[in-house]
Amino acid sequence: MRPQDTDWAAQVRSLQDIEAIRTLKFRYLNACDDKQPDLVRDCFAAGNIEINFGHIGQFDSREAFVAVFVELGCHDHIVDMHHAENMIVDLTGPDSATARVGLRFHSINTRDQTSVQLGGHYLDEYERRDGQWLITASQFLVRSALIKDFSGDCEKVVWAGNGMPH
Amino acid sequence: MRPQDTDWAAQVRSLQDIEAIRTLKFRYLNACDDKQPDLVRDCFAAGNIEINFGHIGQFDSREAFVAVFVELGCHDHIVDMHHAENMIVDLTGPDSATARVGLRFHSINTRDQTSVQLGGHYLDEYERRDGQWLITASQFLVRSALIKDFSGDCEKVVWAGNGMPH
Amino acid sequence: MRPQDTDWAAQVRSLQDIEAIRTLKFRYLNACDDKQPDLVRDCFAAGNIEINFGHIGQFDSREAFVAVFVELGCHDHIVDMHHAENMIVDLTGPDSATARVGLRFHSINTRDQTSVQLGGHYLDEYERRDGQWLITASQFLVRSALIKDFSGDCEKVVWAGNGMPH
Repeated sequence: MRPQDTDWAAQVRSLQDIEAIRTLKFRYLNACDDKQPDLVRDCFAAGNIEINFGHIGQFDSREAFVAVFVELGCHDHIVDMHHAENMIVDLTGPDSATARVGLRFHSINTRDQTSVQLGGHYLDEYERRDGQWLITASQFLVRSALIKDFSGDCEKVVWAGNGMPH
Repeated sequence: MRPQDTDWAAQVRSLQDIEAIRTLKFRYLNACDDKQPDLVRDCFAAGNIEINFGHIGQFDSREAFVAVFVELGCHDHIVDMHHAENMIVDLTGPDSATARVGLRFHSINTRDQTSVQLGGHYLDEYERRDGQWLITASQFLVRSALIKDFSGDCEKVVWAGNGMPH
Repeated sequence: MRPQDTDWAAQVRSLQDIEAIRTLKFRYLNACDDKQPDLVRDCFAAGNIEINFGHIGQFDSREAFVAVFVELGCHDHIVDMHHAENMIVDLTGPDSATARVGLRFHSINTRDQTSVQLGGHYLDEYERRDGQWLITASQFLVRSALIKDFSGDCEKVVWAGNGMPH
């Protein structure tokens, strides 16, 4: 755990890299909430990458994912909150890292008068390319789901479970 | 992204400053939940500052804000949670910084039997004065609001939107 | 606040220690959500420790706590989310630390069709033993509680307060 005295450069760089990777993930989640597809795209590496977002879909490029993000998420009646939780970064090389990033997600659909609360976590891979950390793989696993309908007189829970309805 | 070998002092100081600013914001939010107006006040710089908390009001000093905080928040029937999310700090000078700080806010009013869940973010400015980081400007933007009434037999959503009711 | 030039080793180690303690707490909370009692146990120091989790109980060893964790939490119908919030670490010595760690907890009981949302905070103590940070004391204080029953046609709030029902 303790650095060697001869190794300060690497120790400080590691702390900076963890901070930079955290910031990257936060920028990604904020861009989702802000409905800014260009900023979402720029958080991922160009070319072939692996995105597996379960019920949302699997994607092999940032462009493929962003197209679905725009279709599903970028509407005035969709009000999303994506918050990173309990984020643990592991540096796996000088320019590579993995992370487990908890997510607390809440979405209101003001047109249909429904809400979704999800908990779960991302398993991410990151690489530094041209001096910039980027997401090169991202899988999301739902672990808690609560779907409600408030279109009637009272709020109803229409789904509660450890995953999405089938 | 990578530090110059000649520049360790500044690199380590930057990491410490980011940590100190995060801690300052967390102390502020905790003091709000703990209903400790003196600790809330001490997180802000003395003198003229800019606070714009939207539906809560605009304030040009920490004293003006704390007076409203005491009036609105410091009651036994108000049960608040202020949690920082996706916090991104940018150091803008040796003794100045800005940050975007997501907030997940939840408040129960046990007297009126209502609850409010808000998501949004602060745009903050910080300065180091006499060796201590302080908030010199703070704006809060609501991005998700869900207001419920549970005084009757069932819970009702009385407001759901991307901002507060007008 | 600013490091002395002669003191880099200690400054960098402090930043690493804060990061390691954060990661320890995140691993603990994730292990709770993942229903992995062995990983929960390994976050605490062996031998005599102080755990006071209020309505859950008081425990003087990690084994005593883990037995109750398994009994209460490790069931398919219990769907938990434990998210650390506003975490503030104070290093109190070369191998000791304390922290205030906010918690946002959400639990769904899919069998009874109930849910619990809690806010509050841990007051923790940590020690480094054989190079590894471990939890040596942990107290949890509930500050916000919302318990719901959704077994009927509509969702009902059955408890809302600044602590658990008596």
